[in-house]
Amino acid sequence: MTERAAVVAVRRVDQRGAQSDQDLVAVEAPLSIVVSVQDPPEEVPLGILMRTPGDDRDLVIGLLHAEGLIQCAADVSHWDDGPDRLRVVLGAAADLTALTAHRGELTTSACGLCGRLSMTQLDRGRRLSPGEPVIDATVIASIPRVLQSQQAVFAETGGLHAAALFDAAGALLVLREDVGRHNAVDKTIGAALTAGVLDAHARLLAVSGRVAYEIVQKAAMARVPLVVAVGAPSSLAVDAARAAGITLIGFVRDERFNVYTHAGRIHV
Amino acid sequence: MTERAAVVAVRRVDQRGAQSDQDLVAVEAPLSIVVSVQDPPEEVPLGILMRTPGDDRDLVIGLLHAEGLIQCAADVSHWDDGPDRLRVVLGAAADLTALTAHRGELTTSACGLCGRLSMTQLDRGRRLSPGEPVIDATVIASIPRVLQSQQAVFAETGGLHAAALFDAAGALLVLREDVGRHNAVDKTIGAALTAGVLDAHARLLAVSGRVAYEIVQKAAMARVPLVVAVGAPSSLAVDAARAAGITLIGFVRDERFNVYTHAGRIHV
Repeated sequence: MTERAAVVAVRRVDQRGAQSDQDLVAVEAPLSIVVSVQDPPEEVPLGILMRTPGDDRDLVIGLLHAEGLIQCAADVSHWDDGPDRLRVVLGAAADLTALTAHRGELTTSACGLCGRLSMTQLDRGRRLSPGEPVIDATVIASIPRVLQSQQAVFAETGGLHAAALFDAAGALLVLREDVGRHNAVDKTIGAALTAGVLDAHARLLAVSGRVAYEIVQKAAMARVPLVVAVGAPSSLAVDAARAAGITLIGFVRDERFNVYTHAGRIHV
Repeated sequence: MTERAAVVAVRRVDQRGAQSDQDLVAVEAPLSIVVSVQDPPEEVPLGILMRTPGDDRDLVIGLLHAEGLIQCAADVSHWDDGPDRLRVVLGAAADLTALTAHRGELTTSACGLCGRLSMTQLDRGRRLSPGEPVIDATVIASIPRVLQSQQAVFAETGGLHAAALFDAAGALLVLREDVGRHNAVDKTIGAALTAGVLDAHARLLAVSGRVAYEIVQKAAMARVPLVVAVGAPSSLAVDAARAAGITLIGFVRDERFNVYTHAGRIHV
Protein backbone atom coordinates (compact mmCIF):
# COMPACT_ATOMS: atom_id res chain seq x y z
CA MET A 1 0.00 0.00 0.00
CA THR A 2 1.20 3.50 -0.79
CA GLU A 3 -0.09 7.02 -0.26
CA ARG A 4 -1.82 6.44 -3.57
CA ALA A 5 -4.30 4.12 -1.88
CA ALA A 6 -6.37 4.69 1.25
CA VAL A 7 -8.24 2.32 3.54
CA VAL A 8 -11.97 2.97 3.89
CA ALA A 9 -14.76 1.19 5.70
CA VAL A 10 -17.18 -0.70 3.48
CA ARG A 11 -20.32 -2.83 3.74
CA ARG A 12 -20.00 -5.73 1.34
CA VAL A 13 -23.40 -6.90 0.11
CA ASP A 14 -24.08 -10.13 -1.75
CA GLN A 15 -26.92 -12.59 -2.03
CA ARG A 16 -26.15 -14.04 1.41
CA GLY A 17 -26.36 -10.69 3.20
CA ALA A 18 -24.09 -7.81 4.24
CA GLN A 19 -20.92 -7.60 6.27
CA SER A 20 -18.58 -4.83 7.36
CA ASP A 21 -15.08 -4.88 5.99
CA GLN A 22 -12.27 -2.63 4.83
CA ASP A 23 -11.46 -1.69 1.26
CA LEU A 24 -8.62 0.08 -0.50
CA VAL A 25 -9.52 3.00 -2.74
CA ALA A 26 -7.35 5.10 -5.05
CA VAL A 27 -6.51 8.45 -3.51
CA GLU A 28 -7.87 11.53 -5.28
CA ALA A 29 -6.85 14.92 -3.90
CA PRO A 30 -6.71 18.51 -5.21
CA LEU A 31 -3.42 20.10 -6.25
CA SER A 32 -3.35 23.83 -6.84
CA ILE A 33 -0.74 24.71 -9.47
CA VAL A 34 0.82 28.15 -9.84
CA VAL A 35 3.30 29.01 -12.61
CA SER A 36 5.83 31.79 -11.99
CA VAL A 37 8.47 33.62 -13.97
CA GLN A 38 10.97 35.91 -12.29
CA ASP A 39 11.85 38.55 -14.83
CA PRO A 40 9.55 40.41 -14.95
CA PRO A 41 7.93 38.82 -11.90
CA GLU A 42 4.63 37.24 -12.82
CA GLU A 43 2.53 34.52 -11.29
CA VAL A 44 -0.33 32.75 -13.03
CA PRO A 45 -2.59 30.25 -11.27
CA LEU A 46 -2.88 27.33 -13.63
CA GLY A 47 -5.84 25.92 -11.76
CA ILE A 48 -6.72 23.16 -9.39
CA LEU A 49 -6.28 19.63 -10.57
CA MET A 50 -7.73 16.52 -8.98
CA ARG A 51 -5.01 13.92 -9.04
CA THR A 52 -3.58 10.94 -7.21
CA PRO A 53 -0.74 12.27 -5.00
CA GLY A 54 2.78 11.19 -5.86
CA ASP A 55 4.81 12.13 -8.92
CA ASP A 56 3.44 15.67 -8.71
CA ARG A 57 6.52 17.15 -10.36
CA ASP A 58 6.25 14.65 -13.22
CA LEU A 59 2.62 15.65 -13.58
CA VAL A 60 3.38 19.35 -13.76
CA ILE A 61 6.31 18.93 -16.14
CA GLY A 62 4.19 16.80 -18.45
CA LEU A 63 1.33 19.26 -18.26
CA LEU A 64 3.49 22.32 -18.93
CA HIS A 65 5.10 20.48 -21.84
CA ALA A 66 1.72 19.54 -23.29
CA GLU A 67 0.65 23.16 -22.93
CA GLY A 68 3.77 24.26 -24.82
CA LEU A 69 5.22 26.22 -21.88
CA ILE A 70 8.42 24.22 -21.49
CA GLN A 71 10.58 22.16 -23.81
CA CYS A 72 12.49 20.12 -21.24
CA ALA A 73 12.64 19.51 -17.50
CA ALA A 74 15.55 21.96 -17.17
CA ASP A 75 13.22 24.81 -18.13
CA VAL A 76 11.98 24.64 -14.54
CA SER A 77 14.32 26.68 -12.36
CA HIS A 78 12.70 26.14 -8.97
CA TRP A 79 10.02 24.08 -7.25
CA ASP A 80 8.05 25.21 -4.26
CA ASP A 81 5.94 22.19 -3.47
CA GLY A 82 3.55 21.24 -0.72
CA PRO A 83 1.02 18.47 -0.38
CA ASP A 84 -1.82 20.42 -1.99
CA ARG A 85 -0.16 23.40 -3.65
CA LEU A 86 2.74 23.44 -6.05
CA ARG A 87 4.45 26.56 -7.36
CA VAL A 88 6.72 26.03 -10.32
CA VAL A 89 9.20 28.75 -11.27
CA LEU A 90 10.21 28.74 -14.91
CA GLY A 91 13.55 29.93 -16.25
CA ALA A 92 14.22 33.20 -18.01
CA ALA A 93 13.27 31.84 -21.43
CA ALA A 94 9.73 31.05 -20.39
CA ASP A 95 6.89 33.11 -21.80
CA LEU A 96 3.56 33.12 -20.03
CA THR A 97 1.92 35.23 -22.72
CA ALA A 98 0.20 32.28 -24.32
CA LEU A 99 -1.10 31.23 -20.94
CA THR A 100 -2.49 34.61 -19.97
CA ALA A 101 -3.80 35.46 -23.45
CA HIS A 102 -5.48 32.13 -23.60
CA ARG A 103 -7.00 32.73 -20.17
CA GLY A 104 -8.61 35.91 -21.35
CA GLU A 105 -10.21 34.25 -24.30
CA LEU A 106 -11.62 30.92 -23.60
CA THR A 107 -11.24 30.11 -20.01
CA THR A 108 -14.18 29.24 -17.93
CA SER A 109 -15.50 28.62 -14.51
CA ALA A 110 -16.43 25.28 -15.79
CA CYS A 111 -14.26 23.30 -13.55
CA GLY A 112 -15.59 19.87 -14.18
CA LEU A 113 -15.70 20.34 -17.90
CA CYS A 114 -13.73 17.23 -18.45
CA GLY A 115 -11.94 17.23 -21.76
CA ARG A 116 -12.58 20.88 -22.47
CA LEU A 117 -10.00 22.62 -24.54
CA SER A 118 -9.51 25.65 -26.68
CA MET A 119 -9.79 25.74 -30.43
CA THR A 120 -6.26 27.12 -30.41
CA GLN A 121 -5.10 23.94 -28.83
CA LEU A 122 -6.98 21.93 -31.41
CA ASP A 123 -4.62 23.33 -34.00
CA ARG A 124 -1.47 23.07 -32.00
CA GLY A 125 -0.48 19.49 -32.70
CA ARG A 126 2.79 18.94 -34.39
CA ARG A 127 2.87 16.75 -37.43
CA LEU A 128 5.23 13.80 -37.22
CA SER A 129 6.62 12.36 -40.41
CA PRO A 130 5.04 9.00 -41.15
CA GLY A 131 7.49 6.13 -41.59
CA GLU A 132 10.05 5.24 -38.94
CA PRO A 133 9.90 3.57 -36.51
CA VAL A 134 8.56 0.17 -37.54
CA ILE A 135 7.30 -1.88 -34.61
CA ASP A 136 6.71 -5.58 -34.56
CA ALA A 137 3.10 -6.69 -34.00
CA THR A 138 4.24 -8.96 -31.17
CA VAL A 139 5.53 -5.91 -29.28
CA ILE A 140 2.10 -4.28 -29.50
CA ALA A 141 0.34 -7.48 -28.46
CA SER A 142 2.54 -7.78 -25.37
CA ILE A 143 1.65 -4.37 -23.95
CA PRO A 144 -1.46 -5.27 -21.90
CA ARG A 145 0.51 -7.96 -20.06
CA VAL A 146 3.25 -5.49 -19.18
CA LEU A 147 0.78 -2.83 -18.05
CA GLN A 148 -1.08 -5.31 -15.90
CA SER A 149 2.03 -6.71 -14.25
CA GLN A 150 3.25 -3.21 -13.39
CA GLN A 151 0.03 -1.58 -12.27
CA ALA A 152 0.60 -1.85 -8.56
CA VAL A 153 -2.14 0.41 -7.29
CA PHE A 154 -4.73 -0.60 -9.83
CA ALA A 155 -4.45 -4.15 -8.62
CA GLU A 156 -5.19 -2.96 -5.09
CA THR A 157 -7.97 -0.49 -5.83
CA GLY A 158 -9.33 -1.10 -9.32
CA GLY A 159 -9.43 2.65 -9.47
CA LEU A 160 -6.45 3.96 -11.40
CA HIS A 161 -5.62 4.62 -15.01
CA ALA A 162 -2.12 3.80 -16.19
CA ALA A 163 0.02 5.28 -18.93
CA ALA A 164 3.43 4.03 -19.98
CA LEU A 165 6.22 4.78 -22.38
CA PHE A 166 7.90 1.93 -24.25
CA ASP A 167 10.79 1.85 -26.68
CA ALA A 168 10.46 0.38 -30.16
CA ALA A 169 11.62 -3.05 -28.96
CA GLY A 170 8.88 -3.14 -26.31
CA ALA A 171 11.02 -2.33 -23.26
CA LEU A 172 9.10 -0.42 -20.60
CA LEU A 173 10.73 2.94 -19.83
CA VAL A 174 8.22 4.70 -17.57
CA LEU A 175 4.82 3.83 -16.09
CA ARG A 176 2.60 6.12 -14.03
CA GLU A 177 -0.86 5.75 -12.50
CA ASP A 178 -3.54 8.28 -11.62
CA VAL A 179 -7.28 8.56 -11.02
CA GLY A 180 -7.31 10.80 -14.10
CA ARG A 181 -6.33 9.29 -17.44
CA HIS A 182 -4.88 12.58 -18.70
CA ASN A 183 -2.87 12.93 -15.51
CA ALA A 184 -1.39 9.46 -16.01
CA VAL A 185 -0.22 10.54 -19.47
CA ASP A 186 1.16 13.86 -18.20
CA LYS A 187 3.04 12.08 -15.40
CA THR A 188 4.50 9.60 -17.87
CA ILE A 189 5.66 12.25 -20.33
CA GLY A 190 6.96 14.41 -17.45
CA ALA A 191 8.94 11.54 -15.95
CA ALA A 192 10.36 10.65 -19.38
CA LEU A 193 11.40 14.26 -19.99
CA THR A 194 13.07 14.38 -16.58
CA ALA A 195 14.88 11.11 -17.15
CA GLY A 196 15.88 12.21 -20.64
CA VAL A 197 14.31 9.17 -22.29
CA LEU A 198 11.60 10.90 -24.28
CA ASP A 199 13.30 12.22 -27.40
CA ALA A 200 16.23 9.91 -27.84
CA HIS A 201 14.57 7.18 -29.91
CA ALA A 202 11.30 5.96 -31.25
CA ARG A 203 8.74 5.76 -28.51
CA LEU A 204 5.31 4.29 -27.94
CA LEU A 205 2.75 5.67 -25.48
CA ALA A 206 0.36 3.11 -24.02
CA VAL A 207 -2.79 3.82 -22.02
CA SER A 208 -4.81 1.37 -19.97
CA GLY A 209 -8.23 2.62 -21.07
CA ARG A 210 -9.85 4.44 -23.94
CA VAL A 211 -8.20 7.13 -26.00
CA ALA A 212 -9.89 10.41 -26.86
CA TYR A 213 -8.62 13.48 -28.64
CA GLU A 214 -6.57 14.98 -25.87
CA ILE A 215 -4.33 12.00 -25.35
CA VAL A 216 -3.41 12.01 -29.03
CA GLN A 217 -2.78 15.74 -28.72
CA LYS A 218 -0.44 15.15 -25.78
CA ALA A 219 1.42 12.47 -27.75
CA ALA A 220 1.80 14.89 -30.65
CA MET A 221 3.22 17.57 -28.35
CA ALA A 222 5.67 14.98 -27.01
CA ARG A 223 6.50 13.79 -30.56
CA VAL A 224 5.62 10.21 -29.72
CA PRO A 225 4.78 8.46 -33.01
CA LEU A 226 2.65 5.59 -31.68
CA VAL A 227 -0.29 5.57 -29.26
CA VAL A 228 -1.61 2.21 -28.06
CA ALA A 229 -4.85 1.94 -26.08
CA VAL A 230 -6.25 -1.11 -24.37
CA GLY A 231 -9.71 0.38 -24.94
CA ALA A 232 -11.59 2.13 -27.73
CA PRO A 233 -10.58 5.28 -29.60
CA SER A 234 -12.96 8.18 -30.22
CA SER A 235 -13.62 9.55 -33.70
CA LEU A 236 -11.61 12.69 -32.97
CA ALA A 237 -8.71 10.66 -31.62
CA VAL A 238 -8.61 8.88 -35.00
CA ASP A 239 -8.86 12.17 -36.93
CA ALA A 240 -6.18 13.84 -34.81
CA ALA A 241 -3.81 10.88 -35.06
CA ARG A 242 -4.21 10.79 -38.84
CA ALA A 243 -3.48 14.53 -39.09
CA ALA A 244 -0.57 14.41 -36.65
CA GLY A 245 1.17 11.49 -38.34
CA ILE A 246 0.62 9.26 -35.32
CA THR A 247 -0.09 5.54 -35.51
CA LEU A 248 -3.18 4.96 -33.36
CA ILE A 249 -3.89 1.47 -32.09
CA GLY A 250 -6.90 0.40 -30.02
CA PHE A 251 -8.45 -2.68 -28.43
CA VAL A 252 -5.16 -4.43 -27.73
CA ARG A 253 -6.44 -7.64 -26.17
CA ASP A 254 -5.91 -11.37 -26.47
CA GLU A 255 -3.04 -11.08 -28.95
CA ARG A 256 -5.01 -8.92 -31.36
CA PHE A 257 -5.47 -5.21 -31.97
CA ASN A 258 -6.87 -2.61 -34.38
CA VAL A 259 -4.69 -0.08 -36.20
CA TYR A 260 -6.67 3.05 -37.04
CA THR A 261 -4.05 5.27 -38.66
CA HIS A 262 -0.61 5.05 -40.27
CA ALA A 263 -0.55 1.26 -40.19
CA GLY A 264 2.71 1.27 -42.14
CA ARG A 265 4.60 1.50 -38.86
CA ILE A 266 3.40 -1.94 -37.79
CA HIS A 267 5.28 -5.00 -39.02
CA VAL A 268 2.97 -8.03 -39.06
CA MET B 1 -25.96 3.40 -35.98
CA THR B 2 -26.53 7.01 -34.99
CA GLU B 3 -24.61 10.25 -35.36
CA ARG B 4 -23.02 9.19 -32.09
CA ALA B 5 -20.98 6.56 -33.92
CA ALA B 6 -18.82 6.93 -37.02
CA VAL B 7 -17.39 4.41 -39.46
CA VAL B 8 -13.60 4.41 -39.79
CA ALA B 9 -11.16 2.27 -41.72
CA VAL B 10 -9.13 -0.14 -39.64
CA ARG B 11 -6.40 -2.76 -40.04
CA ARG B 12 -7.26 -5.71 -37.81
CA VAL B 13 -4.13 -7.53 -36.67
CA ASP B 14 -4.02 -10.93 -35.00
CA GLN B 15 -1.66 -13.86 -34.90
CA ARG B 16 -2.65 -14.94 -38.41
CA GLY B 17 -1.87 -11.57 -39.99
CA ALA B 18 -3.58 -8.30 -40.85
CA GLN B 19 -6.67 -7.41 -42.84
CA SER B 20 -8.46 -4.22 -43.75
CA ASP B 21 -11.93 -3.73 -42.38
CA GLN B 22 -14.30 -1.09 -41.06
CA ASP B 23 -14.94 -0.23 -37.44
CA LEU B 24 -17.45 1.91 -35.57
CA VAL B 25 -16.05 4.49 -33.16
CA ALA B 26 -17.82 6.78 -30.72
CA VAL B 27 -18.04 10.32 -32.05
CA GLU B 28 -16.17 13.00 -30.11
CA ALA B 29 -16.57 16.61 -31.28
CA PRO B 30 -16.10 20.07 -29.78
CA LEU B 31 -19.06 22.15 -28.62
CA SER B 32 -18.48 25.80 -27.80
CA ILE B 33 -20.91 26.96 -25.12
CA VAL B 34 -21.83 30.60 -24.53
CA VAL B 35 -24.13 31.71 -21.71
CA SER B 36 -26.14 34.92 -22.15
CA VAL B 37 -28.42 37.07 -20.06
CA GLN B 38 -30.47 39.88 -21.60
CA ASP B 39 -30.89 42.48 -18.91
CA PRO B 40 -28.31 43.88 -18.66
CA PRO B 41 -26.97 42.20 -21.80
CA GLU B 42 -24.01 40.03 -21.01
CA GLU B 43 -22.41 37.06 -22.69
CA VAL B 44 -19.91 34.73 -21.08
CA PRO B 45 -18.11 31.98 -23.00
CA LEU B 46 -18.36 28.91 -20.81
CA GLY B 47 -15.69 27.12 -22.79
CA ILE B 48 -15.30 24.39 -25.32
CA LEU B 49 -16.35 20.94 -24.35
CA MET B 50 -15.47 17.73 -26.11
CA ARG B 51 -18.60 15.63 -26.21
CA THR B 52 -20.52 13.07 -28.20
CA PRO B 53 -23.07 14.99 -30.32
CA GLY B 54 -26.72 14.53 -29.50
CA ASP B 55 -28.59 15.61 -26.38
CA ASP B 56 -26.62 18.87 -26.39
CA ARG B 57 -29.39 20.77 -24.63
CA ASP B 58 -29.59 18.10 -21.93
CA LEU B 59 -25.83 18.42 -21.53
CA VAL B 60 -25.93 22.17 -21.13
CA ILE B 61 -28.90 22.14 -18.75
CA GLY B 62 -27.19 19.53 -16.58
CA LEU B 63 -23.95 21.46 -16.65
CA LEU B 64 -25.53 24.80 -15.78
CA HIS B 65 -27.46 23.12 -12.99
CA ALA B 66 -24.31 21.50 -11.62
CA GLU B 67 -22.62 24.90 -11.75
CA GLY B 68 -25.52 26.41 -9.78
CA LEU B 69 -26.56 28.77 -12.61
CA ILE B 70 -30.05 27.38 -13.10
CA GLN B 71 -32.57 25.60 -10.90
CA CYS B 72 -34.80 24.10 -13.56
CA ALA B 73 -35.04 23.73 -17.33
CA ALA B 74 -37.46 26.67 -17.52
CA ASP B 75 -34.68 29.00 -16.38
CA VAL B 76 -33.46 28.82 -19.99
CA SER B 77 -35.41 31.37 -22.02
CA HIS B 78 -33.87 30.75 -25.45
CA TRP B 79 -31.61 28.36 -27.31
CA ASP B 80 -29.45 29.30 -30.24
CA ASP B 81 -27.89 26.02 -31.22
CA GLY B 82 -25.70 24.83 -34.04
CA PRO B 83 -23.70 21.66 -34.55
CA ASP B 84 -20.57 23.01 -32.83
CA ARG B 85 -21.69 26.11 -31.00
CA LEU B 86 -24.55 26.53 -28.59
CA ARG B 87 -25.68 29.81 -27.10
CA VAL B 88 -28.02 29.53 -24.15
CA VAL B 89 -29.99 32.57 -23.03
CA LEU B 90 -31.01 32.53 -19.39
CA GLY B 91 -34.10 34.21 -17.97
CA ALA B 92 -34.19 37.44 -16.01
CA ALA B 93 -33.51 35.75 -12.68
CA ALA B 94 -30.14 34.40 -13.77
CA ASP B 95 -27.02 35.84 -12.28
CA LEU B 96 -23.73 35.36 -14.05
CA THR B 97 -21.73 36.99 -11.25
CA ALA B 98 -20.58 33.68 -9.84
CA LEU B 99 -19.45 32.62 -13.28
CA THR B 100 -17.48 35.76 -14.04
CA ALA B 101 -16.08 36.17 -10.51
CA HIS B 102 -14.99 32.59 -10.56
CA ARG B 103 -13.37 33.11 -13.95
CA GLY B 104 -11.23 35.88 -12.59
CA GLU B 105 -9.98 33.81 -9.74
CA LEU B 106 -9.18 30.32 -10.65
CA THR B 107 -9.61 29.84 -14.31
CA THR B 108 -6.85 28.59 -16.40
CA SER B 109 -5.60 27.92 -19.84
CA ALA B 110 -5.30 24.41 -18.77
CA CYS B 111 -7.74 22.97 -21.14
CA GLY B 112 -7.09 19.33 -20.70
CA LEU B 113 -6.94 19.54 -16.95
CA CYS B 114 -9.42 16.80 -16.62
CA GLY B 115 -11.23 16.91 -13.32
CA ARG B 116 -9.94 20.32 -12.34
CA LEU B 117 -12.22 22.37 -10.22
CA SER B 118 -12.19 25.30 -7.88
CA MET B 119 -11.93 25.12 -4.14
CA THR B 120 -15.15 27.08 -4.08
CA GLN B 121 -16.86 24.27 -5.84
CA LEU B 122 -15.38 21.81 -3.39
CA ASP B 123 -17.48 23.46 -0.70
CA ARG B 124 -20.61 23.89 -2.74
CA GLY B 125 -22.20 20.50 -2.27
CA ARG B 126 -25.54 20.44 -0.57
CA ARG B 127 -26.01 18.10 2.32
CA LEU B 128 -28.87 15.65 1.97
CA SER B 129 -30.48 14.28 5.09
CA PRO B 130 -29.53 10.66 5.62
CA GLY B 131 -32.41 8.23 5.89
CA GLU B 132 -35.07 7.99 3.22
CA PRO B 133 -35.23 6.48 0.69
CA VAL B 134 -34.52 2.83 1.52
CA ILE B 135 -33.62 0.79 -1.54
CA ASP B 136 -33.69 -2.96 -1.82
CA ALA B 137 -30.34 -4.67 -2.48
CA THR B 138 -31.85 -6.53 -5.43
CA VAL B 139 -32.57 -3.18 -7.11
CA ILE B 140 -28.90 -2.21 -6.82
CA ALA B 141 -27.74 -5.59 -8.06
CA SER B 142 -29.94 -5.32 -11.16
CA ILE B 143 -28.44 -2.04 -12.38
CA PRO B 144 -25.54 -3.35 -14.49
CA ARG B 145 -27.94 -5.54 -16.47
CA VAL B 146 -30.20 -2.58 -17.20
CA LEU B 147 -27.28 -0.34 -18.18
CA GLN B 148 -25.90 -2.97 -20.49
CA SER B 149 -29.18 -3.70 -22.20
CA GLN B 150 -29.76 0.02 -22.83
CA GLN B 151 -26.31 1.12 -23.86
CA ALA B 152 -26.89 1.16 -27.58
CA VAL B 153 -23.78 2.98 -28.72
CA PHE B 154 -21.43 1.37 -26.26
CA ALA B 155 -22.33 -2.00 -27.67
CA GLU B 156 -21.40 -0.74 -31.13
CA THR B 157 -18.23 1.13 -30.28
CA GLY B 158 -17.00 0.08 -26.84
CA GLY B 159 -16.24 3.76 -26.47
CA LEU B 160 -18.93 5.45 -24.43
CA HIS B 161 -19.66 6.04 -20.80
CA ALA B 162 -23.25 5.78 -19.66
CA ALA B 163 -25.11 7.44 -16.82
CA ALA B 164 -28.69 6.76 -15.82
CA LEU B 165 -31.32 7.85 -13.38
CA PHE B 166 -33.50 5.23 -11.67
CA ASP B 167 -36.36 5.53 -9.24
CA ALA B 168 -36.31 3.80 -5.85
CA ALA B 169 -38.04 0.72 -7.24
CA GLY B 170 -35.37 0.30 -9.91
CA ALA B 171 -37.31 1.67 -12.89
CA LEU B 172 -35.07 3.36 -15.45
CA LEU B 173 -36.09 6.98 -16.00
CA VAL B 174 -33.29 8.39 -18.17
CA LEU B 175 -30.08 7.04 -19.72
CA ARG B 176 -27.49 9.02 -21.65
CA GLU B 177 -24.14 8.14 -23.21
CA ASP B 178 -21.05 10.20 -23.96
CA VAL B 179 -17.31 9.85 -24.55
CA GLY B 180 -16.90 11.87 -21.33
CA ARG B 181 -18.15 10.37 -18.09
CA HIS B 182 -19.01 13.78 -16.64
CA ASN B 183 -20.91 14.65 -19.80
CA ALA B 184 -22.97 11.48 -19.49
CA VAL B 185 -23.95 12.54 -15.97
CA ASP B 186 -24.73 16.12 -17.02
CA LYS B 187 -26.88 14.87 -19.92
CA THR B 188 -28.76 12.54 -17.60
CA ILE B 189 -29.45 15.21 -14.98
CA GLY B 190 -30.33 17.72 -17.71
CA ALA B 191 -32.78 15.34 -19.35
CA ALA B 192 -34.34 14.52 -16.00
CA LEU B 193 -34.74 18.21 -15.16
CA THR B 194 -36.34 18.82 -18.55
CA ALA B 195 -38.71 15.88 -18.16
CA GLY B 196 -39.52 16.95 -14.61
CA VAL B 197 -38.50 13.59 -13.15
CA LEU B 198 -35.54 14.69 -11.08
CA ASP B 199 -36.98 16.11 -7.89
CA ALA B 200 -40.29 14.34 -7.59
CA HIS B 201 -39.17 11.24 -5.69
CA ALA B 202 -36.16 9.38 -4.43
CA ARG B 203 -33.66 8.89 -7.19
CA LEU B 204 -30.55 6.88 -7.86
CA LEU B 205 -27.76 7.93 -10.24
CA ALA B 206 -25.86 5.08 -11.87
CA VAL B 207 -22.62 5.34 -13.84
CA SER B 208 -21.04 2.70 -16.04
CA GLY B 209 -17.47 3.25 -14.89
CA ARG B 210 -15.57 4.60 -11.92
CA VAL B 211 -16.74 7.40 -9.69
CA ALA B 212 -14.50 10.28 -8.65
CA TYR B 213 -15.22 13.42 -6.66
CA GLU B 214 -16.97 15.40 -9.34
CA ILE B 215 -19.69 12.90 -10.04
CA VAL B 216 -20.60 12.86 -6.35
CA GLN B 217 -20.58 16.66 -6.44
CA LYS B 218 -22.96 16.67 -9.41
CA ALA B 219 -25.27 14.24 -7.59
CA ALA B 220 -25.24 16.51 -4.55
CA MET B 221 -26.17 19.54 -6.66
CA ALA B 222 -29.02 17.48 -8.15
CA ARG B 223 -30.07 16.27 -4.67
CA VAL B 224 -29.82 12.64 -5.73
CA PRO B 225 -29.32 10.57 -2.55
CA LEU B 226 -27.71 7.45 -4.06
CA VAL B 227 -24.81 7.07 -6.49
CA VAL B 228 -24.11 3.61 -7.90
CA ALA B 229 -20.95 2.88 -9.91
CA VAL B 230 -20.10 -0.26 -11.81
CA GLY B 231 -16.43 0.56 -11.16
CA ALA B 232 -14.29 1.79 -8.28
CA PRO B 233 -14.75 4.95 -6.22
CA SER B 234 -11.89 7.34 -5.44
CA SER B 235 -11.02 8.38 -1.89
CA LEU B 236 -12.43 11.86 -2.43
CA ALA B 237 -15.65 10.46 -3.88
CA VAL B 238 -16.07 8.52 -0.61
CA ASP B 239 -15.26 11.60 1.51
CA ALA B 240 -17.58 13.84 -0.50
CA ALA B 241 -20.45 11.33 -0.40
CA ARG B 242 -20.09 10.95 3.37
CA ALA B 243 -20.15 14.73 3.83
CA ALA B 244 -23.03 15.28 1.41
CA GLY B 245 -25.26 12.60 2.93
CA ILE B 246 -25.09 10.50 -0.22
CA THR B 247 -25.05 6.69 -0.27
CA LEU B 248 -22.10 5.73 -2.46
CA ILE B 249 -22.00 2.23 -3.94
CA GLY B 250 -19.22 0.79 -6.07
CA PHE B 251 -18.22 -2.43 -7.85
CA VAL B 252 -21.78 -3.53 -8.64
CA ARG B 253 -21.06 -6.80 -10.39
CA ASP B 254 -22.26 -10.39 -10.32
CA GLU B 255 -25.05 -9.76 -7.81
CA ARG B 256 -22.74 -8.12 -5.28
CA PHE B 257 -21.63 -4.60 -4.45
CA ASN B 258 -19.81 -2.42 -1.90
CA VAL B 259 -21.52 0.34 0.07
CA TYR B 260 -19.01 3.01 1.09
CA THR B 261 -21.23 5.57 2.85
CA HIS B 262 -24.65 5.86 4.46
CA ALA B 263 -25.37 2.14 4.16
CA GLY B 264 -28.61 2.61 6.14
CA ARG B 265 -30.40 3.36 2.88
CA ILE B 266 -29.81 -0.17 1.60
CA HIS B 267 -32.19 -2.91 2.65
CA VAL B 268 -30.47 -6.31 2.50
